[in-house]
Amino acid sequence: MTEDADTKAAWVAADWGTSHLRLWPMAADNRPLCRIDSDRGMGTLERQGFEAALIPLLEPYLSPDRVLDVLCCGMAGSRQGWIEAPYAETPCPPPSFAQATRAPCGDSRLAVHILPGVKQMEPADVMRGEETQIAGALALKPQLDGVICLPGTHTKWVSVQAGEIQRFATFLTGELFQLLSKHSVLRHSLAPKGWDRATFEASCLDVIERPHAFANMLFSLRAEGLLKDLDPVIARSRASGYVLGMEIEAMRAQWQDRSVVIVGEDEIAGAYAAALGTQGVVAQVMDAEAVTLAGLCAARKQM
Amino acid sequence: MTEDADTKAAWVAADWGTSHLRLWPMAADNRPLCRIDSDRGMGTLERQGFEAALIPLLEPYLSPDRVLDVLCCGMAGSRQGWIEAPYAETPCPPPSFAQATRAPCGDSRLAVHILPGVKQMEPADVMRGEETQIAGALALKPQLDGVICLPGTHTKWVSVQAGEIQRFATFLTGELFQLLSKHSVLRHSLAPKGWDRATFEASCLDVIERPHAFANMLFSLRAEGLLKDLDPVIARSRASGYVLGMEIEAMRAQWQDRSVVIVGEDEIAGAYAAALGTQGVVAQVMDAEAVTLAGLCAARKQM
Repeated sequence: MTEDADTKAAWVAADWGTSHLRLWPMAADNRPLCRIDSDRGMGTLERQGFEAALIPLLEPYLSPDRVLDVLCCGMAGSRQGWIEAPYAETPCPPPSFAQATRAPCGDSRLAVHILPGVKQMEPADVMRGEETQIAGALALKPQLDGVICLPGTHTKWVSVQAGEIQRFATFLTGELFQLLSKHSVLRHSLAPKGWDRATFEASCLDVIERPHAFANMLFSLRAEGLLKDLDPVIARSRASGYVLGMEIEAMRAQWQDRSVVIVGEDEIAGAYAAALGTQGVVAQVMDAEAVTLAGLCAARKQM
Repeated sequence: MTEDADTKAAWVAADWGTSHLRLWPMAADNRPLCRIDSDRGMGTLERQGFEAALIPLLEPYLSPDRVLDVLCCGMAGSRQGWIEAPYAETPCPPPSFAQATRAPCGDSRLAVHILPGVKQMEPADVMRGEETQIAGALALKPQLDGVICLPGTHTKWVSVQAGEIQRFATFLTGELFQLLSKHSVLRHSLAPKGWDRATFEASCLDVIERPHAFANMLFSLRAEGLLKDLDPVIARSRASGYVLGMEIEAMRAQWQDRSVVIVGEDEIAGAYAAALGTQGVVAQVMDAEAVTLAGLCAARKQM
């Protein structure tokens, strides 16, 4: 690859979340030239700081004689972000470029377009960023009729049909697990990493059977640590099974007898796949980054 | 009350928990002379710091010509405390003075006796301090055959019969609520205080119906805050109803058709009573401090 090819980006794909910023300068044929990672997430920035955070990262791709388009999804479009990109409302296809909001930018060498998130009024729910992954999954599997699970701090289950987002539900599961393992009394009992599949699966089944006892099952990890020297990796696997088992059972009507796609990184996607496996469901796992890029490319086609 | 009466304690009752230390110098007739509160809880102290924390608080009651007995319950007897007071094991009566462990003390003017906690091996569970409240509740209601609920960071449900602790279960409920309201994304949505009873009760019923959706119901508070300006006091009442509703349903077999006693401070005891009320249960509330003191007095009788 010549230096020329390296620095001539046709456009830039961007995923600007709460805690991270990812940029992919793209060739004209929608091939990423590289990936730029930054920790300047929305949560670290004041409104006037977004442009200043972005420009140094893109400097090699900027030129005074043309305007570089940046197409961005994620929390940068929230009320606390660069500029609010109003939500589309379900049922709807994943938002396209036509619905993007132009971010105010002093530097005339670039034009930043932020894609809207999606809201659902009843029951109330919101997403920002995941709608672009849905667009990507649908670009890669246009006939998909089923549910897409997007695991994360706030895991989303999105029902799709005929290219549209029908409805979705968000679970605080990932954040709950982080709080329990880092800030609760269980921090003494849970290993920081490690995962035992058989224990995890048994714990999924256990919590599906006795969901109300959730907070008791959690405390039992502490008590077994004190009285029975419970192995911390086993404790972590159980805690993880309890939170995920609850969630997949709650979504039963969405995944039963339907296609299930999980969009996520290996470890977390694998845990959700294993949890669904306890219920006889074989889910297809799609790579989160590939799907995000496919979604931004799909939106770009309508530019 | 003369100064003489004020400073001549027959013994001292002590509740030494993780975050607090409470002392009641007692008259010979088991009337408390006063209450001394300190924030030198077990969690703030190294092993060698307990004596130094205690003596200045008791100095007015100490005399070189006699030994003052201090009878103590709580986390001071844990492995990380002053000295480990080995657990009694269920089924058992609440531990008495005969089972107390003498704490090492350089000052010969006092003798500190720490009451054991209680453990249950199957399912594994532990308590330290609550066993003394059980002793107090049984001293005040000797015929009690039913379940005692002790709300707190780690709420305990203790089944008692014929003066014995039969079995018990601990729920991480209080800690879960604190983590959610102070450290999760919900901190933006929940009021720091305030409680709407009708909302709380409806949320108890809701989560009993759909327990698996717990983490989704929690996220809905955030989403309704964003989309529908959900009142933060209502949001807090709902979150509280979700965590308590789960717990009381899990304990149904313990409270159904049995006497139910709640030992706790007004606000939290009232919330548990309201949650049980949604299931047609009328619980009797007993004051936590009175019950702790009655329990220490009951143990002292066997001194």
